[in-house]
Amino acid sequence: MKNYATVEWENDSMKIIAQTKLPVEFKYLEITDFEDACDAIKRLEVRGAPAIGIAGGFSLYLGMRNFEGTLDEFKNEFKSVAKILNETRPTAVNLFWAIDRISKIVANFEGNVTELKSKILAEAEKILAEDKEICRRMGANGQVLLKDGMTVLTHCNAGGLATADYGTALGVIFSAVENGKNIKVFADETRPLLQGARLTTWELTQRNIPTTLITDSMAAFSMAQGKIDAVIVGADRIASNGDTANKIGTYNLGVLCKHHKIPLYIAAPISTFDFSIENGSQIPIEERQAEEVKSFSGKQTAPNAVSVYNPAFDVTPNELISAIITEEQIFKFPFEDLKNFRKNHIGATK
Amino acid sequence: MKNYATVEWENDSMKIIAQTKLPVEFKYLEITDFEDACDAIKRLEVRGAPAIGIAGGFSLYLGMRNFEGTLDEFKNEFKSVAKILNETRPTAVNLFWAIDRISKIVANFEGNVTELKSKILAEAEKILAEDKEICRRMGANGQVLLKDGMTVLTHCNAGGLATADYGTALGVIFSAVENGKNIKVFADETRPLLQGARLTTWELTQRNIPTTLITDSMAAFSMAQGKIDAVIVGADRIASNGDTANKIGTYNLGVLCKHHKIPLYIAAPISTFDFSIENGSQIPIEERQAEEVKSFSGKQTAPNAVSVYNPAFDVTPNELISAIITEEQIFKFPFEDLKNFRKNHIGATK
Repeated sequence: MKNYATVEWENDSMKIIAQTKLPVEFKYLEITDFEDACDAIKRLEVRGAPAIGIAGGFSLYLGMRNFEGTLDEFKNEFKSVAKILNETRPTAVNLFWAIDRISKIVANFEGNVTELKSKILAEAEKILAEDKEICRRMGANGQVLLKDGMTVLTHCNAGGLATADYGTALGVIFSAVENGKNIKVFADETRPLLQGARLTTWELTQRNIPTTLITDSMAAFSMAQGKIDAVIVGADRIASNGDTANKIGTYNLGVLCKHHKIPLYIAAPISTFDFSIENGSQIPIEERQAEEVKSFSGKQTAPNAVSVYNPAFDVTPNELISAIITEEQIFKFPFEDLKNFRKNHIGATK
Repeated sequence: MKNYATVEWENDSMKIIAQTKLPVEFKYLEITDFEDACDAIKRLEVRGAPAIGIAGGFSLYLGMRNFEGTLDEFKNEFKSVAKILNETRPTAVNLFWAIDRISKIVANFEGNVTELKSKILAEAEKILAEDKEICRRMGANGQVLLKDGMTVLTHCNAGGLATADYGTALGVIFSAVENGKNIKVFADETRPLLQGARLTTWELTQRNIPTTLITDSMAAFSMAQGKIDAVIVGADRIASNGDTANKIGTYNLGVLCKHHKIPLYIAAPISTFDFSIENGSQIPIEERQAEEVKSFSGKQTAPNAVSVYNPAFDVTPNELISAIITEEQIFKFPFEDLKNFRKNHIGATK
């Protein structure tokens, strides 16, 4: 298997895989300034909630590393930079979580500006290192849910390419395989941007896991034919009650799972939870440009006159979710355990 | 609105719209021999169950018009030609229905070969003329189900481009609009071949009907947000109990309709019913080549190593269908009325 890191810090630059080129071309982008970093996040060169969080940390350092001035001026400028970064993508909470984490360090810092710059970089590196470890713990926790011989359907890309290097939903599959289980995977292509076809099947075939690609509309019939034993996906934001925002089409799978009595598992780090909101109705859903739906790779697929509705995410209500796998524990429907965790978690972070 | 006939007989040739070029280019193909006709059906230049039936009639004439020999030799050759045509597409029953209809004329004919050739062409013309009339009756029957102000979701293309010129599912919408109702349409793009994006939105915008294009995976979330009041689609084959084979993704919509308490309507001519089978499990499902899913317009979208499952159709069980609209009547779940119709229909054709 090709060894790859999705986001890393090397040669004083943020090195990321150019994901829009996959699977035809595998190359890295070396990003050295803040504007390019924001642009790469908007263009989805780096995508996937945990990976956006990691890239966010390095982006803040890129935004501040050439700053010259007093500590107070630095703190003011940092707020502007953080605000711009904050507005690159609206749904995934991990970006805001990473910004908050570094903002607290900046706000509380006393000392010289050079030292503060180093602290920001160190915190970004720490977020990266933690993600590697968290994904492996999540995989180990979740793999017990996958039985030998199962065929698992996944949607979009919640793999190494959506995190530092291992993945959330795919990390659970990788861990099951590392534990000697035979697991087959069906991958939804995930229109409009085809992260399933381009990225998930690339990661799975790199690891020699038997993989079958289907269009999103084939999941239902595949379930009816008994081809699917479980569905596992990642998440972009999870509300306090377990309602989960994830790539558009996830809610569709939730309804299909209920109809076919197939479990739906969400795999996501604790940083994906937004305990400030009670339920999924409070999660803002990013709508992206019409061209993603009306064309493909520069080729027009629909008439100019047609309107487009292009929500990038949807919300799956908790009653359609069997379990949420995290690095700490598995939360199970009806998520009473999540209520208790929230109490302790909010207590701990206050 | 542009005036177009999907299939017609002109200048001694079968003139069909080159549907694979739409919506970027609107042009006709003039097909003058049998091999080209079969190829056009396989390549989906002409597609949609009723249109394939119509093209099938003219194709048989193209296959026989240059034949020279005795009547017995003609009848033998006709069987070979019919067999080749029969194998172009496996799921839509209207093709077999058209072949059967003309085969009966050939089998029972006594007279000279020139006269029989004329009779075949006349029968093909009759199938075409009947389709025009049937679709308009179907539209008039079905439009009562659509209320003023409704937004209707459709899948694939069951419009003029799938019939002679008016459509089945879209014909119902056209008829509602002609009756003064404001109807908005959501169109699934319908991967892998994008008949919804390319053909349905083209037809609807030609008629100035407000149309919103979504990817197939967005239907569920659109329903959850209350954007959809009804779903209407065509059919490729309907079993005696109402189980319906239609474009892959229709079954998905059926499950979604049930979950969201939205009616699912099928619109199809009586020729789409296969009363020789009891239920949908007996309908053969065409699997098409992997490249349709692994690439788009010549551009690779997935790694070479990945497998593909590409069923072109699925079967929606009758319990997910609210009503089946035909030119004769509307059949309603639980389809006791269809059982009675079958008895009379089989009696009438015996």
